[in-house]
Amino acid sequence: MTTILAVLAPLMLALPANPAQPLLEDGYDLWLRYRRMGDAAKADALSRSNSIVMPAAPSLTTLAAVAELHRGIEGMTGKVPSLAKAPEEGALVLVTPANLRSLAPLTLPLEGLGKEGYLLRSTRIDGQKVTVIAANTDIGLLYGAFAWLRKLQMRTSPQALDQLDERSVPKIQLRMLNHWDNLDRSVERGYAGESIWDWWTLPDNKNPHYVDYARANASLGINGVSLNNVNAKADILTAPWIAKAAALASVLRPYGIKVYLSVRFSAPVELGQLETADPLEPAVAAWWKAKADEIYRAIPDFGGFLVKANSEGQPGPEDYKRSHADGANMLAKALTSHGGIVLWRAFVYSQHDPKDRAAQAYDDFKPLDGKFASNVIVQVKNGPIDFQPREPFHPLFGAMPSTPLALEFQITKEYLGFATHLAYLGPLFEEVLQSNTCRKGAGTTVAKVIEQGRISAMAGVANIGSARNWSGSHFDQANWYVFGRLAWDPDVSSKTIAREWVEQTFSTDSRTVDAIVDMMMMSREAVVDYMMPLGLHHLFDTGHHYGPGPWVSNLKRPEWNPTYYHRADKDGIGFDRTAKGSNAIAQYAPELSAQWADPHTTPEKFLLWFHHVRWDYTMASGRSLWQELIAHYDGGVAAVADLRVRWGRLKDAIDSQRYAEVAAFLAVQEREAIWWRDASIAYFQSISGLPMPTGSRPPAHSLEEYKSRQFPFAPGRG
Amino acid sequence: MTTILAVLAPLMLALPANPAQPLLEDGYDLWLRYRRMGDAAKADALSRSNSIVMPAAPSLTTLAAVAELHRGIEGMTGKVPSLAKAPEEGALVLVTPANLRSLAPLTLPLEGLGKEGYLLRSTRIDGQKVTVIAANTDIGLLYGAFAWLRKLQMRTSPQALDQLDERSVPKIQLRMLNHWDNLDRSVERGYAGESIWDWWTLPDNKNPHYVDYARANASLGINGVSLNNVNAKADILTAPWIAKAAALASVLRPYGIKVYLSVRFSAPVELGQLETADPLEPAVAAWWKAKADEIYRAIPDFGGFLVKANSEGQPGPEDYKRSHADGANMLAKALTSHGGIVLWRAFVYSQHDPKDRAAQAYDDFKPLDGKFASNVIVQVKNGPIDFQPREPFHPLFGAMPSTPLALEFQITKEYLGFATHLAYLGPLFEEVLQSNTCRKGAGTTVAKVIEQGRISAMAGVANIGSARNWSGSHFDQANWYVFGRLAWDPDVSSKTIAREWVEQTFSTDSRTVDAIVDMMMMSREAVVDYMMPLGLHHLFDTGHHYGPGPWVSNLKRPEWNPTYYHRADKDGIGFDRTAKGSNAIAQYAPELSAQWADPHTTPEKFLLWFHHVRWDYTMASGRSLWQELIAHYDGGVAAVADLRVRWGRLKDAIDSQRYAEVAAFLAVQEREAIWWRDASIAYFQSISGLPMPTGSRPPAHSLEEYKSRQFPFAPGRG
Repeated sequence: MTTILAVLAPLMLALPANPAQPLLEDGYDLWLRYRRMGDAAKADALSRSNSIVMPAAPSLTTLAAVAELHRGIEGMTGKVPSLAKAPEEGALVLVTPANLRSLAPLTLPLEGLGKEGYLLRSTRIDGQKVTVIAANTDIGLLYGAFAWLRKLQMRTSPQALDQLDERSVPKIQLRMLNHWDNLDRSVERGYAGESIWDWWTLPDNKNPHYVDYARANASLGINGVSLNNVNAKADILTAPWIAKAAALASVLRPYGIKVYLSVRFSAPVELGQLETADPLEPAVAAWWKAKADEIYRAIPDFGGFLVKANSEGQPGPEDYKRSHADGANMLAKALTSHGGIVLWRAFVYSQHDPKDRAAQAYDDFKPLDGKFASNVIVQVKNGPIDFQPREPFHPLFGAMPSTPLALEFQITKEYLGFATHLAYLGPLFEEVLQSNTCRKGAGTTVAKVIEQGRISAMAGVANIGSARNWSGSHFDQANWYVFGRLAWDPDVSSKTIAREWVEQTFSTDSRTVDAIVDMMMMSREAVVDYMMPLGLHHLFDTGHHYGPGPWVSNLKRPEWNPTYYHRADKDGIGFDRTAKGSNAIAQYAPELSAQWADPHTTPEKFLLWFHHVRWDYTMASGRSLWQELIAHYDGGVAAVADLRVRWGRLKDAIDSQRYAEVAAFLAVQEREAIWWRDASIAYFQSISGLPMPTGSRPPAHSLEEYKSRQFPFAPGRG
Repeated sequence: MTTILAVLAPLMLALPANPAQPLLEDGYDLWLRYRRMGDAAKADALSRSNSIVMPAAPSLTTLAAVAELHRGIEGMTGKVPSLAKAPEEGALVLVTPANLRSLAPLTLPLEGLGKEGYLLRSTRIDGQKVTVIAANTDIGLLYGAFAWLRKLQMRTSPQALDQLDERSVPKIQLRMLNHWDNLDRSVERGYAGESIWDWWTLPDNKNPHYVDYARANASLGINGVSLNNVNAKADILTAPWIAKAAALASVLRPYGIKVYLSVRFSAPVELGQLETADPLEPAVAAWWKAKADEIYRAIPDFGGFLVKANSEGQPGPEDYKRSHADGANMLAKALTSHGGIVLWRAFVYSQHDPKDRAAQAYDDFKPLDGKFASNVIVQVKNGPIDFQPREPFHPLFGAMPSTPLALEFQITKEYLGFATHLAYLGPLFEEVLQSNTCRKGAGTTVAKVIEQGRISAMAGVANIGSARNWSGSHFDQANWYVFGRLAWDPDVSSKTIAREWVEQTFSTDSRTVDAIVDMMMMSREAVVDYMMPLGLHHLFDTGHHYGPGPWVSNLKRPEWNPTYYHRADKDGIGFDRTAKGSNAIAQYAPELSAQWADPHTTPEKFLLWFHHVRWDYTMASGRSLWQELIAHYDGGVAAVADLRVRWGRLKDAIDSQRYAEVAAFLAVQEREAIWWRDASIAYFQSISGLPMPTGSRPPAHSLEEYKSRQFPFAPGRG
């Protein structure tokens, strides 16, 4: 029975001591909360930001930077900085080549900052202490402004701010979000409500949320967004929809964000009434050229097309016996004169050859290396199956040296528990980025492969929807955050970024930060452990991908079935990708295929990805594989129970509404972790016939009961 | 090209002069904004609310009342009232029978206030000036608190507050919202985003929005809500969904709101594996009894079932050759011991008899008068077709004297322009409520018929979704508001209520209020005029019901086709419901059927509802029917253009974000009003062959062009 006090708190909403800083936070402000500082920090911040100097005739982007500085400083100090015509003591001075000369004798090393980099420097102008935010462009100023505000939110010490001298230049050129948003506002694999794009009232109504979306992305350096699902409808290319896209582009443009569209390869037939969509037909190329011209009249800085073709039923050039390169190049040519690009997805697996899905994208695309036009990027998922909790990196990274590759991550947690499971994906992203491809000699990480492309790009399938907290849960915001920060610099550690995020989003108290960062850093591995440990993959239930389904073997295509992936039998489990099996390891550099050829030299986290292993195989721990498997399940469940305890200790350190929501979700996660463990064990036990290890609890229900569970209303079907 | 200034404003979001009162409003606070008063009003308000006295051992509901008073007073004055143990100068004293004795010699006339009524009185206790909020129950206190806060928001004068002595008792017992929300979170005929119910994370996560939803409804006196679509899924009666409903019920309960569920009549077959859902089968009755018991274990104050049966494909008792009464009574019996009720919808039209859809509910239900169990209410739409911009009142009102009838309105604007058209429905509701049924002698209005039922009820199909502004547009909030206020007292004028709403929602400046109220009061008739004037009805396009489709004649059931309703031919237009036609007028009282038997005595607003009239028929204006029709279309379009001008004059009086959103929608509405007019004229002209009246612009496009328009992604299909 709840006490009156426990009830009173939520009833007495929004009774703030300091009205500008609500007691109850709903997550809408993301990591841009700009909470009021304590007196000492406030005084110091004020001494560095009492006024702002900007170049004359400021662009919309420069004004956006100034507006953000206003917002941030006002939130943190309670005072709005004035606009000053010239540098004065304590000013923030925004500098580009346009006004640098007027600040002589001040010199600044702007060369090398490129079009997006920035410099933050504490210095003196005419003897007055100022902070300079400098860049070659207004967008660099915007990024610099966000970076400076980040430092303040993180309570950077006065000493450090006095000595501020930081250059930052993004290592990846295109840093993109891919929305899988449909035109009816549903979101495929979206767990944060419906699409943020209110299509029906666009282009007439520009929801103010779009500006906050743009701010959040600009704070991370994200500079491109594809608006619509890669399972595209041709309608997106019709005039009314181009107008909607143009309206969104106008809101995003000042924040340095370009708009892209996912296109359906058969659009010339569906919209243009052509008889064919054969990319080598002149009429088809002409249709696309005219369509591109139409788009660019509405959106002069349109980014380009994102394409899913000949994949999971989507139309494509292979329908006409043409190659992916034929298709991509034809589209690229339509965009060339406008400076647009084509991102052509390599997420393909043959409808007709179920041998090893993990090998097929490589088989299809490697021969096309060097055959793509210069404004085509081939977009490759991080691993060769499909965004599983763990996959080895995709063999195409390093295998297509003459083709720029974009790395596609999934930020939305289709396979990691939807929005309800706490799983910080920074370690997953980092693991992939720092994977050594062993191509071009030692040390060519996946990150380097991407960075060294003629055009470099990283894309994340967005976890953003119309939920008040944007991402469906408070901790899922961190995955959007870490994606953006890693796209700017893939070599920063995910733990450093977690710290940044926590300090801006929750608290700057160091013990609280440590505690939350520790939770985040353990969370991904916990999910791996209770869902698919030791290299297991693709064991989720059908359609919604929610919950376990390792028994599923009745789907039309063999490589849709979980049984195809784990191959469990009475003797063992796992997919043999060595030369004795599918030989997918041969798609990797020799050093790696040698390492992965032998179970004993394969990292155990990938054991069952590359090998079919006997249940009685002895693991490094001394346990059998069977025992180790169950130890991982148990460990995953225990980790979630631990997360709940850790979060419980933070009750007084976190605002009550967000505290309660995270606690509620952790309770769900614990229940579901147990379900994953129990259902998986029930099934694998029915195959192996092996007993439960001593001390390990048997499944709570029967295998039949787990198999009977249905979820007709699970979100994200899109 | 937008100016930098025009751009700067939205970029510089939330830079409030007074941080507690944001510059930019997003509509989330509805009419409960509690904006800071000017100094004089603030001082007066403080003098009346420096402390709150409440009964000892306050219930959650009493605490909710106190919390609302805190919130309101703090918002309006900047100061939080203290809690006082006993009355003191300037206190708000909450009184129920529990503490009345302790306040002797104070006496208060609580008798007659019933279970929900309240008394507001300025008085003295021990010589100290206090304001008493008194009721027999804590829910009465909550309603009284909201009423008092409303007075303050409306800047009631000190003199009036000094003399405050107001009793208010609701005239209708059940004041309900019906959500047409589906279990996948879509909303049928919803234009405010997806369902407010985050089903997937219930029951574990109770979104704070649910509390604000409860507050908003309690402020209107709404005391019941059915959670799910009347096109119900049986799943709502399964354990997981009962748990979700129970979680919502726990949040709504302190606010006096009971939860109801829409049930599917075939549930015993779908869920219980029975062979039949025949209501006279003992096993079926037993299944429902057990199900009711299960629900009441989870929700002890569950309201009951809302049922759509044998209507538009929904299963029902007639599938087993039983009557509506058989079905309703069986369900009612399952609920009787728990105090629950059945609301059985009378929205039926025969699959097999297309004679006159408007006559069929009466034909089916009138013979059942007096045959329903005492805890059954028959729920009847306001008119006999389906929520058209104008319909005469439903003939069942006054025709079933032995059966309590609930009046069902549609708040969501399925047929009045979705959320984009500004249409204040207060006049529509008022028109129906004040319609004289002419039953039981003169003056028995529809309102009186409802009020005099053994159980009285009014239901509104909700316009609430997860949009930040709840209802899809700012002005659509007013329709939720006026529905609630009219359910409390059906005899208040819709103009008075409009004023209330504007003063709380936008401004208390009297010129601004007058201007906005004028806009609201003209808006419904504008929609009638540009869509379906002179009694025309059901002329919308197929499926989505968005935009004109008077030509549609290809739908499977004749009474789905617009042509069935307008019957336009070369000689005239309209549906003959006199004795020469369907004789539906005979279903009304003799005084009305006599009036409506003759076009010349039929109000012109109903002319084509009751008569098929020649195009050259002379109207009261002297114009022919054809000319009058077009004059109405022109008038409707002109009215919207006028609304835009009027709104433009209010630019400086309205906060900028809401101003801009309303302006954007008005522009859409003008475009669409023109489209309705032009498409309708193009079609009717093709039938009548008549020329455009002098001075009236011909349609902008061809009839074929209008017919070709498709809207595959229109919202609300649910």
